[in-house]
Amino acid sequence: MLTQLNKLSVALLVHSILSMTLPAQPVDTAKAREYELLARKIFSTGLASGKAYELLTELTTRVGARVSGSPQADQAVEWGKRTMERLGFDKVHLEMAMVPHWVRGPLEEASIVSSKSLGNVPLKICALGGSIATPEGGITAEVLEVKSFEELQAQKDKAKGKIIFFNRPFDRSKLNSFEMYGGAVNQRGQGAVEAAKVGGVAALVRSMTSRIDDVPHTGAMGYVDSIAKVPAAAISTVGANLLDDLLNKEGNVTVYLKLTCKTLPDVESANVVGELTGTEKPDEVIVVGGHLDSWDKGQGAHDDGAGIAHSIEALRLLKDMGLKPKRTIRAVLFINEENGLRGGEAYAAKERPGEKQIAALESDAGGFTPRGFGVSTDSVRFEKIARWAYLFEPIDADRIRKGGGGADISPLARKGVPQIGLRVDGQRYFDYHHSDNDTIDKVNERELELGAASIATLVYVLAQEGL
Amino acid sequence: MLTQLNKLSVALLVHSILSMTLPAQPVDTAKAREYELLARKIFSTGLASGKAYELLTELTTRVGARVSGSPQADQAVEWGKRTMERLGFDKVHLEMAMVPHWVRGPLEEASIVSSKSLGNVPLKICALGGSIATPEGGITAEVLEVKSFEELQAQKDKAKGKIIFFNRPFDRSKLNSFEMYGGAVNQRGQGAVEAAKVGGVAALVRSMTSRIDDVPHTGAMGYVDSIAKVPAAAISTVGANLLDDLLNKEGNVTVYLKLTCKTLPDVESANVVGELTGTEKPDEVIVVGGHLDSWDKGQGAHDDGAGIAHSIEALRLLKDMGLKPKRTIRAVLFINEENGLRGGEAYAAKERPGEKQIAALESDAGGFTPRGFGVSTDSVRFEKIARWAYLFEPIDADRIRKGGGGADISPLARKGVPQIGLRVDGQRYFDYHHSDNDTIDKVNERELELGAASIATLVYVLAQEGL
Repeated sequence: MLTQLNKLSVALLVHSILSMTLPAQPVDTAKAREYELLARKIFSTGLASGKAYELLTELTTRVGARVSGSPQADQAVEWGKRTMERLGFDKVHLEMAMVPHWVRGPLEEASIVSSKSLGNVPLKICALGGSIATPEGGITAEVLEVKSFEELQAQKDKAKGKIIFFNRPFDRSKLNSFEMYGGAVNQRGQGAVEAAKVGGVAALVRSMTSRIDDVPHTGAMGYVDSIAKVPAAAISTVGANLLDDLLNKEGNVTVYLKLTCKTLPDVESANVVGELTGTEKPDEVIVVGGHLDSWDKGQGAHDDGAGIAHSIEALRLLKDMGLKPKRTIRAVLFINEENGLRGGEAYAAKERPGEKQIAALESDAGGFTPRGFGVSTDSVRFEKIARWAYLFEPIDADRIRKGGGGADISPLARKGVPQIGLRVDGQRYFDYHHSDNDTIDKVNERELELGAASIATLVYVLAQEGL
Repeated sequence: MLTQLNKLSVALLVHSILSMTLPAQPVDTAKAREYELLARKIFSTGLASGKAYELLTELTTRVGARVSGSPQADQAVEWGKRTMERLGFDKVHLEMAMVPHWVRGPLEEASIVSSKSLGNVPLKICALGGSIATPEGGITAEVLEVKSFEELQAQKDKAKGKIIFFNRPFDRSKLNSFEMYGGAVNQRGQGAVEAAKVGGVAALVRSMTSRIDDVPHTGAMGYVDSIAKVPAAAISTVGANLLDDLLNKEGNVTVYLKLTCKTLPDVESANVVGELTGTEKPDEVIVVGGHLDSWDKGQGAHDDGAGIAHSIEALRLLKDMGLKPKRTIRAVLFINEENGLRGGEAYAAKERPGEKQIAALESDAGGFTPRGFGVSTDSVRFEKIARWAYLFEPIDADRIRKGGGGADISPLARKGVPQIGLRVDGQRYFDYHHSDNDTIDKVNERELELGAASIATLVYVLAQEGL
């Protein structure tokens, strides 16, 4: 292979490099080889006897969905603490955070009322997180369909008294599924505000998925103090397509919508924290986390039970393999990512005298096959992390790219801590995200274990070598 | 390892290369850029309006499982021809091949008979493809468990009259799922012969999967003329674990096994062939294929309906995008990969005067996210193909590695034709493989479409540039 290098043909060099182990610099060759063998051992051990899937099965089936403020969220906090204690982590404790307490309420329903051709047709909907309820008798109103806020502004004369139906689908041509999401999610987040601005009485938002099925996907929405609050619900993509067809055919369609959700006073909750305390530089801390809360749909398996299982398992795997990190590796199970980020804010705000958080890694893109890491930091530190890419080549997870991190660690990043996000194969994520589809049977054991082993490998190397 | 590379300080170069578009050589820069834009357009178009998932849904739900020689296999051949004609491919035709005709028969069952602790316990089993039936009353015999043929030889004194239970599990520590399979599958292929050699009356083989569930996985087994034929069945991993536990606890366990499968005379079947005839060098042919037959379990969705959908869709996508290949791109839906390879042999054996098959590509590893291609050819042609890796970087599918191909195109490869296999994310494959789990709902639409678009991109570039 090296004879090719002599020719200095870039293409050949590239192919040689892509098809062999990358050299690490400035780590010496013996150490690079040692880490390479260790990484392979971590991957093999994780696959052969990893516990991430077992942990995720416990969390999703014994606790289930666990929206902030719910009894299930409390149970998840207890489970996380009990689990870390059982596994023998160091300094297991809770760090309190006040969290929002939104509840879906006992009833939500919608239907197309007396369409000319179909009569009364029930629609699969669910309240968006944070929405107010409808009046007790529900809302019955004509529907105005728009694909964008600009289109809504252009049609504002027709909007008064109507249910505004935001129906811009995912742009399926995007190569990255998160780009599809990013191109549509303002409808969910700001739809209610935009509807209210033009006199709309509710927002009905096409579910944030490219899949055509009859399962609504919830997610966070917000209000603005100066604008009237109107209820907001997600409608399944099947329902959205039906409604669109009817509107095209009949012009006027009336929908009935009833929601009983409400926001109660904030309640006390907590991040769960445990660590493998560093043997040489315990005050240099690498945070590894995911979020413990989920929405109240499905089981929160990929979002983000997977990140919780990844984080706990990364430490367990290192510990049970007898690997003692020089710097501290700390698992943080963040509370309230979905509707408040209070856990992430609380972790970053807490004074930790003498401690330095040298990096924070989050897994919040699902329990799919790992592809690499996204890293947000200065270019010197980026190169320091990127030099370890070769370790992940045996499992095709060596894409270390600029940019990335996670919502829970973004408050740390704002304080200058390098943030790292686990990158996974994301094509299936929005099939499940925030819906009843997000259950343990959608998670493949080997894919999940490989994610945990990838995290374990990177954070261990960072713990040994610093950043 | 590349110590010289360290001195050249190429780590930074590697990272810059990895994070930018790879240059193609010796293609000129303008052309490289043109292909890069085209590849992105093919990926986007495939994701936005691809038909692979629709094609696979048709094949799996209207035809279903389609073992060679079955009426469903005939229907699949008709469907393939009709589909290629409907899509306007050139020269759509059938190429006849005689295929084996093994049938499962109306009944197969097994149970643990009078274990001391459990009494009669039904076991989930299925005949292995090619097995003979048991005698009409079934076989009731004590079980001898072994993990290897060596262990069986060592215990041959105890084997006479027994059902030999081959229970070596997948080695889950393997990073690649096909390595797990490769390390266990001789039990399925040769278990019956090895059992008969030592006087065993049947072979009961642990299913070829790392998943623990109650679904047996079938697959091909063989006999040797000089050795007595005994029936062979797969047992689910749940059943295998139960049987193993009981044998450990009780020492003796008796199992009842009944199979009614049989092999009928060979029947006529066919490969389905259609093409986009090359505009400049029509006699230089690039074959793109998968296998049309499946086992008679599930729907043959990943194995290998996905490869069929990939192959047809690759041509459709190019055609409907108005791309006219200079060389011929030919889709071949091979018959009888699973238990005979007669279709692959027939395609390679047929005289095609004036034609040169310049490459053959197969998709037979499932409809998962593409990762790249495995290529078996000389090093000059390998480099010619590998220079296109950069085209697949936007979808993380740029791993072009030495080795690989497919069973159906292996007879072509033996005649010197370069063979290429689509590499996909394989961790889930053996959860479904050859079992009732292999159904359309296990296939993600975006992952499948990306596979077809990847194939379309590579074969189009080869059609334009030659090999």
